[in-house]
Amino acid sequence: MEGRTVIGWAARDSSGYLSPYSFTLRKTGAQDVVLKVLYCGVDHTDLHQIRGEIGLTSYPLVPGHEVVGEVVELGPEVSKFQIGDIVGVGCIIWSCGECLACKSNMEQYCDKRIFTYNAPDRDGRTTQGGYSTAMVVDQRFVVRIPDELAPEQAASLLCGGVTAYSPLRQFTGSNRDVKGGILGLGGVGHLGVSIAKAMGHDVTVISSSDKKREEALEHLGADAFLVSSNAQEMKKAANSFDYILDTVPAVHPLEPYLSLLKVDGKLIVVGAAPKPLQFNASQIITGKKTITGSFVGSIKETQEILDLWAEKGLKVMIEVVKLDFVNKAFERMEKNDVKYRFVLDVAGSNLE
Amino acid sequence: MEGRTVIGWAARDSSGYLSPYSFTLRKTGAQDVVLKVLYCGVDHTDLHQIRGEIGLTSYPLVPGHEVVGEVVELGPEVSKFQIGDIVGVGCIIWSCGECLACKSNMEQYCDKRIFTYNAPDRDGRTTQGGYSTAMVVDQRFVVRIPDELAPEQAASLLCGGVTAYSPLRQFTGSNRDVKGGILGLGGVGHLGVSIAKAMGHDVTVISSSDKKREEALEHLGADAFLVSSNAQEMKKAANSFDYILDTVPAVHPLEPYLSLLKVDGKLIVVGAAPKPLQFNASQIITGKKTITGSFVGSIKETQEILDLWAEKGLKVMIEVVKLDFVNKAFERMEKNDVKYRFVLDVAGSNLE
Repeated sequence: MEGRTVIGWAARDSSGYLSPYSFTLRKTGAQDVVLKVLYCGVDHTDLHQIRGEIGLTSYPLVPGHEVVGEVVELGPEVSKFQIGDIVGVGCIIWSCGECLACKSNMEQYCDKRIFTYNAPDRDGRTTQGGYSTAMVVDQRFVVRIPDELAPEQAASLLCGGVTAYSPLRQFTGSNRDVKGGILGLGGVGHLGVSIAKAMGHDVTVISSSDKKREEALEHLGADAFLVSSNAQEMKKAANSFDYILDTVPAVHPLEPYLSLLKVDGKLIVVGAAPKPLQFNASQIITGKKTITGSFVGSIKETQEILDLWAEKGLKVMIEVVKLDFVNKAFERMEKNDVKYRFVLDVAGSNLE
Repeated sequence: MEGRTVIGWAARDSSGYLSPYSFTLRKTGAQDVVLKVLYCGVDHTDLHQIRGEIGLTSYPLVPGHEVVGEVVELGPEVSKFQIGDIVGVGCIIWSCGECLACKSNMEQYCDKRIFTYNAPDRDGRTTQGGYSTAMVVDQRFVVRIPDELAPEQAASLLCGGVTAYSPLRQFTGSNRDVKGGILGLGGVGHLGVSIAKAMGHDVTVISSSDKKREEALEHLGADAFLVSSNAQEMKKAANSFDYILDTVPAVHPLEPYLSLLKVDGKLIVVGAAPKPLQFNASQIITGKKTITGSFVGSIKETQEILDLWAEKGLKVMIEVVKLDFVNKAFERMEKNDVKYRFVLDVAGSNLE
């Protein structure tokens, strides 16, 4: 059953080059929300997916999983939203609702989860993302953007922000001081600094060189900056961190960072290196260190980070561009030449 | 200041061959307990240490860190024990008492901990272990062997038993059913099965072949047996375990075992492989899996496992041998030709 005809920017092959593409949405279901896309964040995963670097890519592919839009149509059973609401959609658009993960408010780990794009949907179509004029999404996977939050600011929180928020929230609410490290100052890392600070943690940015020191301390408000190649500084910081959020999406040694953790400290891996990572068993045994992973966040947590961001008046550092700039944006993102996220002004772009 | 002259069995070089060796203990300090050694367990670490395979070994070296003895002398300030008490000593004989680990009852992770043998002691001597007629140990690192527990049974609990007990106790006390896996059915693994069962867990032994099925199910009382090379069985068991206690001290792939874990499930590494282990970041990220380590247990936990063992009337499967058999025992242990631990009858041996 066909619904609206929309225009997205799609990759046609593994060159990953995006160009206008016309397709139809499904007919609006009882629980569905149709949103006119306003803004969409640009994520590293988008780049890997359009190039077919993560499993199979089904072309044409419209990426985008940090989608902010305005509700323009509601299915008859939608109770959560009204026409005109500003809403967001993140990385998944469906889960089974019945498994242990779903019942524990961790539906992002549901085995049957459907990703926002490049995934087989329940009706056999391939899901298409937010680099598009409109989307249709089950209301369960739509969050509310608080009034106080500019919609372009909200975009990066829907994946990048919640990726940092979800694993860090376990450290809040304790009575003691929490010392956290942020490894890698990119899209997720820079949001991680703000989130950890908002949670009251003592935050150290850990980087391979001194280049980002001023940025971390002056602009992002980190409490300290640690250069991982400085053996003396690293030794001084040994056994002092409750956690390190590891946002580095490339192969890197873990030993130096594990040595920074306290007993029971956690290295939280959120950047997916394309090849295996290594660790020494004796190091994690004799020091009681933990390596753990975390994948975006739940819908509940996505709403929480949006509300927290609005409440604290925090800022995402973004560069807003039009859709016809997107191929150039990918080039620059690949060279880490962006502070810190691109956000596409979809509604303001000429999509044809 | 010299104390008693004792006879231990020591390695003289990296051949690891043990033979009688006469040495003196320190003079009994105010907080010290002197114990006549009755039994001492034989651990894989002993083998690696006498051969100089773990860092530097200081020869002559008397191994042994599963020591059960009878108190024969007390320092003037010892309040915890009386002459004639049956007591135990495990892997460490001192810690600072002041660091976060010590103050959190996790003194086994204290940076200044002193291992029971092959470690520089506070007076400059090298510590010597329990393959010896007597030992002198600070009362803080001595535990009480319950009356109901045969001393030879207690020995293996002081390292092997508490190594399984310490990381598993976090799973007790929850209201829900806990499903645990024991990977590797050796000294620590077989104790792990009994301990997990005593904690009320549903216990699966995971093994590379079918050989130990009957043993696991009939003799050790495991609830299930899973052959890791059986792809169909492994697939059926995917995402079902709360934890897997990984006792394998050799390099092995982690991916198959991580896939068995539930969201938030833990792979608890207690066997120190001599080379790095590998994992795929994307697997731990998208499945929220955790890899963690655990090193023996605290003195408090050591007392707990002894008391639990006595209370439940559990049995350790051991082979008791005299000291003149120890070189042969190492040979057999290396071939996994023992069910499941050797215990040396030190008091019943001719040590000269």
